[in-house]
Amino acid sequence: MDEFELISTFVSQFDVAPPPRGPGDDCAVLPKQGPSCVTTDALVEGVHFTRRAFSMDDVGHKALAVNLSDLAAMGARPAWFTVALGLPDWVTARHVNAMSAGMARLARLHGVELIGGNVTRASQLSLTLTLSGALDGPPLLRSGARPGDALYLSGPVGDAATGLSILSTNPSARSPLVDAQRRPVPHVAFGRFARSRCSAAIDVSDGLAQDLGHLCRASGVGADLDSSALPMSPALLDRAGSRKAAQACVLSGGEDYVLLVAVRDPPAFERALTRSGFEAWRVGTLRKGSGVNLDGVRLTGRLGFMHR
Amino acid sequence: MDEFELISTFVSQFDVAPPPRGPGDDCAVLPKQGPSCVTTDALVEGVHFTRRAFSMDDVGHKALAVNLSDLAAMGARPAWFTVALGLPDWVTARHVNAMSAGMARLARLHGVELIGGNVTRASQLSLTLTLSGALDGPPLLRSGARPGDALYLSGPVGDAATGLSILSTNPSARSPLVDAQRRPVPHVAFGRFARSRCSAAIDVSDGLAQDLGHLCRASGVGADLDSSALPMSPALLDRAGSRKAAQACVLSGGEDYVLLVAVRDPPAFERALTRSGFEAWRVGTLRKGSGVNLDGVRLTGRLGFMHR
Repeated sequence: MDEFELISTFVSQFDVAPPPRGPGDDCAVLPKQGPSCVTTDALVEGVHFTRRAFSMDDVGHKALAVNLSDLAAMGARPAWFTVALGLPDWVTARHVNAMSAGMARLARLHGVELIGGNVTRASQLSLTLTLSGALDGPPLLRSGARPGDALYLSGPVGDAATGLSILSTNPSARSPLVDAQRRPVPHVAFGRFARSRCSAAIDVSDGLAQDLGHLCRASGVGADLDSSALPMSPALLDRAGSRKAAQACVLSGGEDYVLLVAVRDPPAFERALTRSGFEAWRVGTLRKGSGVNLDGVRLTGRLGFMHR
Repeated sequence: MDEFELISTFVSQFDVAPPPRGPGDDCAVLPKQGPSCVTTDALVEGVHFTRRAFSMDDVGHKALAVNLSDLAAMGARPAWFTVALGLPDWVTARHVNAMSAGMARLARLHGVELIGGNVTRASQLSLTLTLSGALDGPPLLRSGARPGDALYLSGPVGDAATGLSILSTNPSARSPLVDAQRRPVPHVAFGRFARSRCSAAIDVSDGLAQDLGHLCRASGVGADLDSSALPMSPALLDRAGSRKAAQACVLSGGEDYVLLVAVRDPPAFERALTRSGFEAWRVGTLRKGSGVNLDGVRLTGRLGFMHR
């Protein structure tokens, strides 16, 4: 297939507008927009996924999911995105179709519109997406937290990293833990709920300890985490055997794509959670100073998960 | 260097706003925007450039230039962009600095603002940029041309492809032809001039014959090119020996990043050119039907330049 056939194969699964809004001209043309957020993130074969452990549908899903998670962390409503594909010679129309199917399904779920893209030859399969989301009010920033704010997580952490370790020995494994690694669920609705109710947020992509460190530095605060409060999934506890055994993975495992938020008024926040049906776990408190403590002991070193 | 050091090295050369508008939070936050254009394009080592023939400064320049050219083709005013870097292990801070310098210089020249990005490990060096431009009126589209419109080019074609062939045998060559390959000059100002004065436009990135074919299909017209009117640079004529010898390269060589525009009222357009100081060469005429003819003979086959 040549470049143009690959593009039309990829695009065919999406509900796209005709050009100039949709793909087909030198640029996509957008009408005026209100305040918005923009993010870009890439998924690279051999770095973020392997062909042995991920289906092409998984790859398409995950490439969009990790970008949606960045929009979620700002409390934005997903609006549009572009896709730049780097395709090795082994990629066939069937691979492109499957990638596109995984991505298109998630795009439809979140009402985010494919407006353009690019295809190039490359030695590794890569998907670089740029997403924009609309803001219905001031965004959630990393820098908005203050000493005294409570910290909440919108879901359990550690599953995706554990799933990755399972896949490294059994690439065809099936379980909730490997699902968390292959097909993360971005917390977009929770982010929009949190936007007007939280003082700061970050998505947990590099591991709880590292991302909390980013939030603390941006806000000029320190944090106290309570190990007994960290949410862990039944699947993770089952595999690890105990909370203690799971703890390192919960702190430093990456790619959970849950949200970590700071809350000024926990009782009001918890009432709103109950009313709305969202769940969140209170895991600690922000304080003056800097650094992240767990049960009063300072976490040091690079606890985060680094793709590079 | 770790991911965060690489990012700050890259960003340090640009005039960036503090977060949340500039890099540093989960997304960049933008105020409301008028009508705009969005494009994404990638530069990949071994596909679009080699380390032997391109300096890192060239690579940074070209990655931004090819995207600016897409905005130019719509008549848009460059506004903001994101950069996703795929970095192999051989990349040092010095490489990142040089890439960033080449890109930042061109960004400053066009007043386009870096708002965010991403860094990942990869086996090939790649730069995937997404740019947005503001529209001060209706955009130039590929689809706006009508039979009878005249075709103009905003500069000579064939230089960049000839430069590529020179570099394949002499990677350290210096000449206007290799400059055209290494450091293309996007015709942004011409595009803004053309926006209200032309009926259609495309940037010549895949070769004149192929890009004219795209414009014809989008507009539902055919085209007649006049070989004697095709603009060729003195450097190209000098190397090729004759217009005839240069012709294949002029028709099918890619990466010129000049604009091809359709014009309904050539005398008025030429008066405007004279007043404004822009140059353009009238190379043919659009007609009913389809396909591209050169001196009355139909051009067939894949004359364009394909990166993949």
